[in-house]
Amino acid sequence: MKVDGQAYRSLWFDEASESVAFIDQNKLPHSFRIDHLQSLEDAAEAILHMGVRGAPLIGATAAFGMYLALRADPSPHSEEQAARTLLATRPTAVNLRWAIERLRERLRQTPGPERTAIALEEARQIAEDDVKTCEAIGDHGLTCLEKIWKEKSGKQEALRILTHCNAGWLATVDWGTALAPVYKAHRAGIPIQVWVDETRPRSQGAKLTAWELAAEGIAHKLIVDSASGHVMQRGLVDCCIVGSDRTSASGDVCNKIGTYPTALAARDNEIPFYVALPTSTIDWEIDDGLREIPIEERDANEVCEVSGITAAGKMETVRVPPLGTPAANYAFDVTPRHLVSGLITERGVFTANPTELSLLKKQLNRE
Amino acid sequence: MKVDGQAYRSLWFDEASESVAFIDQNKLPHSFRIDHLQSLEDAAEAILHMGVRGAPLIGATAAFGMYLALRADPSPHSEEQAARTLLATRPTAVNLRWAIERLRERLRQTPGPERTAIALEEARQIAEDDVKTCEAIGDHGLTCLEKIWKEKSGKQEALRILTHCNAGWLATVDWGTALAPVYKAHRAGIPIQVWVDETRPRSQGAKLTAWELAAEGIAHKLIVDSASGHVMQRGLVDCCIVGSDRTSASGDVCNKIGTYPTALAARDNEIPFYVALPTSTIDWEIDDGLREIPIEERDANEVCEVSGITAAGKMETVRVPPLGTPAANYAFDVTPRHLVSGLITERGVFTANPTELSLLKKQLNRE
Repeated sequence: MKVDGQAYRSLWFDEASESVAFIDQNKLPHSFRIDHLQSLEDAAEAILHMGVRGAPLIGATAAFGMYLALRADPSPHSEEQAARTLLATRPTAVNLRWAIERLRERLRQTPGPERTAIALEEARQIAEDDVKTCEAIGDHGLTCLEKIWKEKSGKQEALRILTHCNAGWLATVDWGTALAPVYKAHRAGIPIQVWVDETRPRSQGAKLTAWELAAEGIAHKLIVDSASGHVMQRGLVDCCIVGSDRTSASGDVCNKIGTYPTALAARDNEIPFYVALPTSTIDWEIDDGLREIPIEERDANEVCEVSGITAAGKMETVRVPPLGTPAANYAFDVTPRHLVSGLITERGVFTANPTELSLLKKQLNRE
Repeated sequence: MKVDGQAYRSLWFDEASESVAFIDQNKLPHSFRIDHLQSLEDAAEAILHMGVRGAPLIGATAAFGMYLALRADPSPHSEEQAARTLLATRPTAVNLRWAIERLRERLRQTPGPERTAIALEEARQIAEDDVKTCEAIGDHGLTCLEKIWKEKSGKQEALRILTHCNAGWLATVDWGTALAPVYKAHRAGIPIQVWVDETRPRSQGAKLTAWELAAEGIAHKLIVDSASGHVMQRGLVDCCIVGSDRTSASGDVCNKIGTYPTALAARDNEIPFYVALPTSTIDWEIDDGLREIPIEERDANEVCEVSGITAAGKMETVRVPPLGTPAANYAFDVTPRHLVSGLITERGVFTANPTELSLLKKQLNRE
């Protein structure tokens, strides 16, 4: 997508510096900065401290991390260590594991001296595929939005979509998951108004989604997370779309903390609740999302401290609660499948239930 | 309640300075400061900018505001103007109207020269009554908590209560509404663990509830608002208790934004959801809470900017989203009565339905 008129991806291989360039998402929205990964350690650090984040982008970054490790040491031992280091960074998003396995599978078919070149090729292919996948999610999601807009147009000025966290192009290599249909709809001429949940504690909604939508010229309004129920209750939302960090084989959706209460409010107000995800986000080994998906607990300071710019334009961090207040920081929650109206994937829109998803699995396995 | 061993109320008439003293809640938790109201304008300003907040405390402050207005000018015109000024400060909490009407009713029975003295007497009585009322709420709520703890004790270390916003002693003259039963239970020897929703955007949970609980030595943990569903889903909550800014005659509860999704999550996980309130918070003129209770929309900057202390110990305000991001700031939402397990009042615990509440109304009218 474009930033000040120039096309960007969130991550790419930079030929000139022979490193992996990425938009540092910890600096957004107050500063737009490109940083570079030179080593496995750089890649692991960027994932861990969320310079890159979002399930699909974490996957692509991990693939490049594998390449960087092999470039330094192409041995099988180095490959094994790199995979372990990267897998340990964040426990919830399954794309991390998926991308590493895809790359290692490719390496298994490759003789010694070419391993590094093949790793780079495969990492780049994973990134390319992610762009195509997300664009396809956008096209399938557009069909859902067009259907809703058909019923609403003439009665109201815009299609009002609520999203939580950032599942935009910054969460992927390009296009996004939840926001891809929004971008497609906007370009197709549907007037759009997005309710942006700020997404405490890291404020990905306020910092990243608001920034993305402004750059694309899409009307939006920021609300606190706990107001999403209220705007739905007041009849101000036509549709919710969120992303996913891991979806179980039965259709339970693990996503940013706060997705579950938003889905509850959508159901209570009979508002469609869609989840947009690449099929690589489905964990076919897990059935019961609530019992089986590990929920990352992050540093309590993320709940207690908030960063932003002061009136003087300086980046600063402030602590809100009393010194010493203990906090818990659960990064994700699980939305049971019965609250999900549909899973928008690159293969089309699926009902979130084990039967439909097993058909999808067969389709994927045949290829 | 006690602050560093000294007993305080949130608001009181200070004989020495002949002014109304209050704990400035905009300074907490990083600074404990007593300020004074000398005039109607001071009182209106304190309510508007939330130096005092919480439905019962707003009511008591407004009563003192009426007195301060009459002290400056005891005419009926001044009384009328003062009532209008105070009613215009905040639209949702009905205690504001209730306290002003109670004081004016008393004035109607009073001849000219004594009006000012009577206004002070009545304001003090309103404050005194609030303390008694809140303590009675605590006693009735304790009965609910004892019942839940009876089933849980032996199986777990503590009774785990979730609360949203601050309905503690700072929201009233003393004791609190939602926290009064918690204080009573703690003093009765029940081991308590409180999940404190931070309560965006003004962070009354993080700033005030965490501060109150720490002062009282009650174990607690801060979470982001959108994590309340998750902790309930994980079986970590035994009971929710919140306050109310206005409750309809049919039992719908208007309270801090985010109460509604929390109640939805409680129902989805079969967790009791109690609302603690003085009967003065019931608006007998309103039946359908969702359609009829006016929801205050506050300055969008409250959503975009966060205040706290820097590492250097300085108070500072930072902006989180991009400059220019539009935001909406709904201060309250409405929880439909069917999500409420019980209304804990100074008169006992009532089911949130029109029949039970009409019996309560008759009881109140008989006196």
